[in-house]
Amino acid sequence: MPGPLDGIRVVDVSEVISGPLATMILADQGADVIKIEPPGHGEESRQLVNYRDGMAALFLNCNHGKRSIGVNLKSEKGLKIALDLIREADVFVQNWRPGAADRLGLGEEAIRKVNPDIVYASISGFGEDGPYADQRGYDPIFQCLTGYVSSQVNPEIPMPDLVRNAVVDKATSYSLAQGITAALLARERGADGQHVDVKMLDAGLAFFWPDGMLRHSLVGGGIDHFVVPGERYQLMPTSDGQIMIWCSTADQMRASLLVVGEEEMARSPEQRGKTMLGEESQLARAEAVRNGLTRMTTQEAYERCIEHEVPAAPVLTHQDVLVDPQITHNGCVIEAQHPVYGRYRRAKPSARFSGTVPEATESPALYGEHTDEILKEMGYEEADRAALRDDSVVL
Amino acid sequence: MPGPLDGIRVVDVSEVISGPLATMILADQGADVIKIEPPGHGEESRQLVNYRDGMAALFLNCNHGKRSIGVNLKSEKGLKIALDLIREADVFVQNWRPGAADRLGLGEEAIRKVNPDIVYASISGFGEDGPYADQRGYDPIFQCLTGYVSSQVNPEIPMPDLVRNAVVDKATSYSLAQGITAALLARERGADGQHVDVKMLDAGLAFFWPDGMLRHSLVGGGIDHFVVPGERYQLMPTSDGQIMIWCSTADQMRASLLVVGEEEMARSPEQRGKTMLGEESQLARAEAVRNGLTRMTTQEAYERCIEHEVPAAPVLTHQDVLVDPQITHNGCVIEAQHPVYGRYRRAKPSARFSGTVPEATESPALYGEHTDEILKEMGYEEADRAALRDDSVVL
Repeated sequence: MPGPLDGIRVVDVSEVISGPLATMILADQGADVIKIEPPGHGEESRQLVNYRDGMAALFLNCNHGKRSIGVNLKSEKGLKIALDLIREADVFVQNWRPGAADRLGLGEEAIRKVNPDIVYASISGFGEDGPYADQRGYDPIFQCLTGYVSSQVNPEIPMPDLVRNAVVDKATSYSLAQGITAALLARERGADGQHVDVKMLDAGLAFFWPDGMLRHSLVGGGIDHFVVPGERYQLMPTSDGQIMIWCSTADQMRASLLVVGEEEMARSPEQRGKTMLGEESQLARAEAVRNGLTRMTTQEAYERCIEHEVPAAPVLTHQDVLVDPQITHNGCVIEAQHPVYGRYRRAKPSARFSGTVPEATESPALYGEHTDEILKEMGYEEADRAALRDDSVVL
Repeated sequence: MPGPLDGIRVVDVSEVISGPLATMILADQGADVIKIEPPGHGEESRQLVNYRDGMAALFLNCNHGKRSIGVNLKSEKGLKIALDLIREADVFVQNWRPGAADRLGLGEEAIRKVNPDIVYASISGFGEDGPYADQRGYDPIFQCLTGYVSSQVNPEIPMPDLVRNAVVDKATSYSLAQGITAALLARERGADGQHVDVKMLDAGLAFFWPDGMLRHSLVGGGIDHFVVPGERYQLMPTSDGQIMIWCSTADQMRASLLVVGEEEMARSPEQRGKTMLGEESQLARAEAVRNGLTRMTTQEAYERCIEHEVPAAPVLTHQDVLVDPQITHNGCVIEAQHPVYGRYRRAKPSARFSGTVPEATESPALYGEHTDEILKEMGYEEADRAALRDDSVVL
């Protein structure tokens, strides 16, 4: 059965993570995504990191299920091919620097001339204007500017660090994918095609804000209970590693005493909630749990947590993640075979649909793999296709 | 002008972050979100952290623009009110534990009886079945199980840490918001209403994977260039703090030498790319930049980076974020006045629409603020509304 976005066509000239991951979410839901790649080696991330025979893992992870056409957009004929594709599309996506799309002839105005009703989607780093508009932005830069890094302080080692994955890039992708889908829905319900724009700076802050900026949400005084959950996140040492325990109810907190064999303290009226639990008793409990855990292996501690219904987890290595029983049960990791690049793994998309169930998308395309197929669909005869190739208009 | 989701009605019984943030994204785009809250103090997060006069910052940050009705779903009449609301809705959202919706009479089957075409959206922690299905899951638990924590190791302090914001909760929210929108689009284009489900475990892994699991994406040998960008994220010490510098092109790397006054090294044929840059020269450059930065203040270093077009940022405190010139220019932070709870700040939604521009949504509702208004819309007369209130069916 086709996915929920079956019949939607996306023309995508975006690069690296923020744009490609957004359009992969759409492709995973059945959209026909045509990736226009530049001459040379194709889109930049094909060569970025961890590659085999010219296929980079990062490219693989952001480009399933798209078709690839190589087009020299700086040639007149190449631009015409792009505009002809865009004429028949529902969505156009770019994440070039401000001004670049206009210079190439693929700005919103130029595109609306050939397709007035298209959803024009763009990503920029800081935005089209403002004091930093001319700077190049990357994920770790945005993390520093939007609060992630100053929050990323382990109380035991008080120095800031980064979130060590591209959280701002990916928040941008998810926000754009949702925004594009909303604009398509609005169009289906009578609105015009429109411009959906996400700035990485804005997306970084909006994603961080709900729980990250709790200390700056209410303005002024009179605020009680100045706790930020992320500041309480703390791994507990065990005899052979660490464990994460996260108690969010009084029952769970009391049960954590049973995990470490502190039955007596657990039975005390205070811990049983017969009276208000004072700060001293809270500290005593935390101390008892912490001490008790250091005398157990992570495995023992984890098993006792499960037994006493205390939310807990060991720190899984990436290798452990792949074989975790629940991750395996949920089918979160898909092993696949690329026809050219060999075996690889991918994560299953997280939103599951009961009705319009998307088929598993194809492996990422080779550079220009669908050039000929797409040109044929556009009506180019064999001789014309050969001429375009000879002139390096298409690749 | 109304937002892209104008005319879409959502009935939401979800709690804390994952569900409420998803429906706030929909509310911010114009959907009419009716939040059904339980008796007592209303939805759990109203009391969670950082509160003033009973309004918690976390609630504030996940619940703009929704209407609140207090309903005792465990009473027969309360359940009928919920089902009557659901009958007229496009979307129903719950994030209860597996089985709870069925026990309350709000499982998918029961809801399809009154509204066959609704989009039924659910979030669970681990899923309906499988070895961990009965465990309660929270953000830090999922972070441990899906690779974030074992990646969160600063090379200078080799011990794992958590991402100190609720990244898995929020990835779940964004994924569900997009999935709901896709299901609405599919329905508008002829598909039936369907179930959209997101498991936090799945969402955590899918969000982490693209750049986080690069070492485990290609299976087998023959892989070149084993670099993971997040492992290279490193703040550099300055004379009075730290700075983030992120060079991703050869030009930027060479320019970083100019930042620290190493003109001679920058002019060398190797650094100018006349020959392949060997590992030794790369290390020499990194060392020169690192040493040079320790002799500058963060402000000096930052200014010189901007001058030489080297991507860089200081680590902004949360207070600094609020007044950053580009964040201010982009209008990312909105100051608002809640009629009862006073002044507060919110983050502007990151996806911006040029056509269906949503109006700024209302401040979060008081508990039960719209009970009477919604019952009126449903056709209840004043006497009936009073009776329902007297019987504690509504609140």
